[in-house]
Amino acid sequence: MPPQRTATKRTTKRAVATRVFPHLAIECVAPQLDCGRFAVKRVLGDSFEVSADILKDGHDQLAARVRWRAPGDADWRTAAMVYENDTDRWSGGFPLDRIGAWRYTVDAWTDHFGTWRGELRKKLEAGQDVSLEVLEGAIMAERASRHATADARKALRQWVATLRDITVDASQRATAALDLALLALMEEHLLPDDLTSYDRELVVWVDREPARFAAWYEMFPRSQSTVPGVHGTFADAERALPRIARLGFDVVYLPPIHPVGHTNKKGPNNSLEARPEDPGSPWAIGNEFGGHTAVDPRLGTIEDFDRFVQAAHRLNMEIALDYALQCSPDHPWLKEHPEWFFIRPDGSIKYAENPPKKYQDIYPMNFWCEDREGLWNACRDILLFWIDHGVRTFRVDNPHTKPFAFWEWVIGEVHERHPDVIFLSEAFTRPKRMKHLAKLGFSESYTYFTWRNTPGELREYLTELTHSPMAEYFRGNLFTNTPDILHEYLQRGGMPAFRVRLLLAATLSPLYGIYSGFELGENVPVREGSEEYLHSEKYEVRVRDWSAPESLDPDIERINTIRREHRALQLSTNLSFHLSENDQILFYVKSAPDFGGRDDLLIAVNLDPAHAQETMVHVPLDRLDLPADAPYVVHDLLTGARYTWRGSRNYVRLDPGVQVAHVLHVER
Amino acid sequence: MPPQRTATKRTTKRAVATRVFPHLAIECVAPQLDCGRFAVKRVLGDSFEVSADILKDGHDQLAARVRWRAPGDADWRTAAMVYENDTDRWSGGFPLDRIGAWRYTVDAWTDHFGTWRGELRKKLEAGQDVSLEVLEGAIMAERASRHATADARKALRQWVATLRDITVDASQRATAALDLALLALMEEHLLPDDLTSYDRELVVWVDREPARFAAWYEMFPRSQSTVPGVHGTFADAERALPRIARLGFDVVYLPPIHPVGHTNKKGPNNSLEARPEDPGSPWAIGNEFGGHTAVDPRLGTIEDFDRFVQAAHRLNMEIALDYALQCSPDHPWLKEHPEWFFIRPDGSIKYAENPPKKYQDIYPMNFWCEDREGLWNACRDILLFWIDHGVRTFRVDNPHTKPFAFWEWVIGEVHERHPDVIFLSEAFTRPKRMKHLAKLGFSESYTYFTWRNTPGELREYLTELTHSPMAEYFRGNLFTNTPDILHEYLQRGGMPAFRVRLLLAATLSPLYGIYSGFELGENVPVREGSEEYLHSEKYEVRVRDWSAPESLDPDIERINTIRREHRALQLSTNLSFHLSENDQILFYVKSAPDFGGRDDLLIAVNLDPAHAQETMVHVPLDRLDLPADAPYVVHDLLTGARYTWRGSRNYVRLDPGVQVAHVLHVER
Repeated sequence: MPPQRTATKRTTKRAVATRVFPHLAIECVAPQLDCGRFAVKRVLGDSFEVSADILKDGHDQLAARVRWRAPGDADWRTAAMVYENDTDRWSGGFPLDRIGAWRYTVDAWTDHFGTWRGELRKKLEAGQDVSLEVLEGAIMAERASRHATADARKALRQWVATLRDITVDASQRATAALDLALLALMEEHLLPDDLTSYDRELVVWVDREPARFAAWYEMFPRSQSTVPGVHGTFADAERALPRIARLGFDVVYLPPIHPVGHTNKKGPNNSLEARPEDPGSPWAIGNEFGGHTAVDPRLGTIEDFDRFVQAAHRLNMEIALDYALQCSPDHPWLKEHPEWFFIRPDGSIKYAENPPKKYQDIYPMNFWCEDREGLWNACRDILLFWIDHGVRTFRVDNPHTKPFAFWEWVIGEVHERHPDVIFLSEAFTRPKRMKHLAKLGFSESYTYFTWRNTPGELREYLTELTHSPMAEYFRGNLFTNTPDILHEYLQRGGMPAFRVRLLLAATLSPLYGIYSGFELGENVPVREGSEEYLHSEKYEVRVRDWSAPESLDPDIERINTIRREHRALQLSTNLSFHLSENDQILFYVKSAPDFGGRDDLLIAVNLDPAHAQETMVHVPLDRLDLPADAPYVVHDLLTGARYTWRGSRNYVRLDPGVQVAHVLHVER
Repeated sequence: MPPQRTATKRTTKRAVATRVFPHLAIECVAPQLDCGRFAVKRVLGDSFEVSADILKDGHDQLAARVRWRAPGDADWRTAAMVYENDTDRWSGGFPLDRIGAWRYTVDAWTDHFGTWRGELRKKLEAGQDVSLEVLEGAIMAERASRHATADARKALRQWVATLRDITVDASQRATAALDLALLALMEEHLLPDDLTSYDRELVVWVDREPARFAAWYEMFPRSQSTVPGVHGTFADAERALPRIARLGFDVVYLPPIHPVGHTNKKGPNNSLEARPEDPGSPWAIGNEFGGHTAVDPRLGTIEDFDRFVQAAHRLNMEIALDYALQCSPDHPWLKEHPEWFFIRPDGSIKYAENPPKKYQDIYPMNFWCEDREGLWNACRDILLFWIDHGVRTFRVDNPHTKPFAFWEWVIGEVHERHPDVIFLSEAFTRPKRMKHLAKLGFSESYTYFTWRNTPGELREYLTELTHSPMAEYFRGNLFTNTPDILHEYLQRGGMPAFRVRLLLAATLSPLYGIYSGFELGENVPVREGSEEYLHSEKYEVRVRDWSAPESLDPDIERINTIRREHRALQLSTNLSFHLSENDQILFYVKSAPDFGGRDDLLIAVNLDPAHAQETMVHVPLDRLDLPADAPYVVHDLLTGARYTWRGSRNYVRLDPGVQVAHVLHVER
């Protein structure tokens, strides 16, 4: 196979100097999301570690630094990176002490003086002549002196003289030049001659801590009256708050609180015929009393809402509102801005549909209409309105049915003014679309957790959430149930099933939530095979008796207390699964550095709500720094019991009628 | 934890329209190397498959295409991408029928007509009123007609009339509108209103096929005389070619052929004192007869070289030259261009060193000297000179000791003029530096293969080469030995060890090579524990007797013939390892589509050169489309023997004294 012969044209005078020739290669800077297109996420107080591959030809010593700009700062700051032997990998970090967008990148250069110093030492040890080497050192010291402050300049010039003093033996001068004082001077004052920067600036978005660690409670304020059948008010909802606070929740999330549409109103159990007294679905937003910036008069006034928000704050809780961008047929926007909707050839406005299904109580907005700017601004202003009323967290309804571009824009607009605002994405859709919404800026996201019930499903899914690239940007909020999802596992497993799912949600993830009624074990579906509740609160007022003896309130209060007391449960990527010889018992470890020590929790959960199960669990002794042969004590934070364990394999038995799980703190 | 309250500033009139709002997200376009910073590699004749995640909100049908520009073309071409159900992943491809740099990217848009048509069908099936839908279809058809050619415009207008004909029942008009003729017209003429392009153009570099599939033979032309002690010539080397061609090699690689320096010349076995008659190391380039563009007069003239190259071409082989950018103390450049070297404070030129070691026969160039442009151009012109003399392949000596920027530049300069040139990187250094050189443009690379001898090492390393991201850009050339590397496995294993390593190199990779003397089983190191040869050809002329009875020539000829006859051995990423119950026997499969069928090779190699080993190997029946229970015949291409196998587990016994391997072709 002789190669093809081509006539050669010589163009020896092409200007090589006009191109850019980096002396070093900086690659694989981490963390990094989609080539820097999106920000990675952290929370306030985290220390941020950046690493990079830094490559150069030859054997010179290199130096590198991470460079960053804090939110609102004009100046860059830097910190030295350290080299991990023989890996070409460098790392360095800085503390994230402010919320908002931090920019970071990496610089590297050749450490000429360090290289010279290392080689000089080897030559001295080998007894070689170093008379030229000391003169080369003098040249470098002289160069450094040019950019030095007065004192340093004087010191460096002294070194130049010393190195050039031919009355002294070269090896003696060289030995002197190994002085750490000279090294320090040179490290500070010798400018790099090949400073190379990574070709991108990356962004880490820093949220306040509840974006990663919070317990959510969803409740319908209209169900908070104490009289069955009577529509609750914000005042009723305010009276419900102390119990929720006592249970240890951080966020109280309300479905839409706006005026509810009349036209095509849904009746109980999603029936198409509603009676006048039926309250309608709160997601059919808008009527003659207003739209997304009004409150349902049946709940009270905006002042009542403000009082409710303040009451929550006094209890150290915050209120999350629903941001559901759709309108009932009676929403004021349909008359004021028909151009923001889809207009059909007969001039009518198009209702929602998923052919052949029709949703005639809901009108979607046309985000790409001619007046896109007006519509988008109005949607943003809804958020700004509620922010003005003390709301800093929004649960966003079905974001995957509105343009990705809109979310990136509106979250950016809000964060520019209020970097403390938290957005929860309620997108139950295909994995890549859920991930993309998180990349675009959602602080946290609903997950597939309700549908992950077997040990294999839980291990695989939680490992993906905490150890795949998702860990950098997707914060899963594990809800045990929602008004739309009552899983078969809960329908069939009785109270033990509820305890299992509570325990899993609250310990597998620092972010979790329950929807009102969960604590009472409500488990009746609207019909066999459905995940909808019978008499769903979406269409009816449901007044509950919280004093029921079977209530899970004590369990919830206990686990939320444990979460607040243990740093290991406040982090996400510190989860690891370990062998349990009986697969029905899931065994995992949450580990964290704690104030002055370490916080290791060994958690075993019996996933079988119907039968006692026993197993041998395998404790990762090395990782936990536990002795291979000496006994150690584990303390069950749920019951207070203490067990003496030894070695890796230890016995666990869990009877769901008594206790579905151990949350074992390793005592040191 | 009440959120902090911040004063809200409303700026409702921010211009959203001035930003860019892509309607779709195009992500994870593959193949792709380091965010498109570097090209992926293919060879002529490959078909190139591109895939991407394409995401949009809602439920609209999407459409996508791959778009590419062939080398030298100004225009882009496109091909439709197809959707893989429920994965959000699309793929499409095009044939690579030209060498050089191909650019490619991905476009996507909403398929409005397809969406409309799908929904219309569902509504018709549900018996719903579709009178507005047909009018909406008419609007789309009208829009399409505006951009259509005359005939299509006429046809589309006819459809508009049909859809609007209120004398006909709407469902009848809708049924008519499902006509495939209308679909075809709309697919061709309805312009996308939200065409979104991936935000980068990517590059695939296409080499001629020997960049991926070739057998290399390294020889020192000065050793090709038939009289011991007499320095060989190009004429002698020419006489050596027919044997090498008969053995089935494609590339004959020569260490440097340039004048050899006298000063500090190395003697036998790398001794510092050479006798006048010692030939010196060919890597000490340059003397009074010239430098990198001259030939050693002892080898002949440039015309002799040209004849030698032509002789190789006539035998369907090509000559690869060594590109070693360093100079002997006698190289003309030291006098003509001292500014291209490192000048010491006393005005002397700095020789190579790795303190405390000194290499006084070699002077490195200063690639970042003041006259960088002159030096780099001169280095490029060395390549262009030899290209003019029929050379299209260069083995580059120690590229990791010259700047990365230089390699990217010089390979680009050469490829701009001669895209058929192949560069082999001889960098034995840390993994990331080897990978980086491949990314910068080297067509192929030496590997760690010589040091991978156990089954685990081979499986792990070859899996990385063929199934990690390296597979996109790093083509490993598996040399069994080099003048610098005689591995202990060969030193101790006798001829069976040589057979094992030959078999592995030639079947694990489409690119492999041997260094002259391998076929004679030369295995004596310069001293115990060294990988250097005794009487290394680097410092001495070595005349060999190719007619030795123990020669591996028949083995080499056989395996090279098999390689040429079997497509499966000409590809790289088609390698998979499978279970062998005795770990001493390595078992792997190479599979390829062949002309009108498939080419599956099952390869078992006994890695123990001292003992017979037996095992049960596990054939991946599913992957090979073999029956679970019926017998099938495998044909040993090395011996001609045929075996009838059945099911997955089959027996293999290999006695290294008889046969170290089976290369079994599955007969169909």
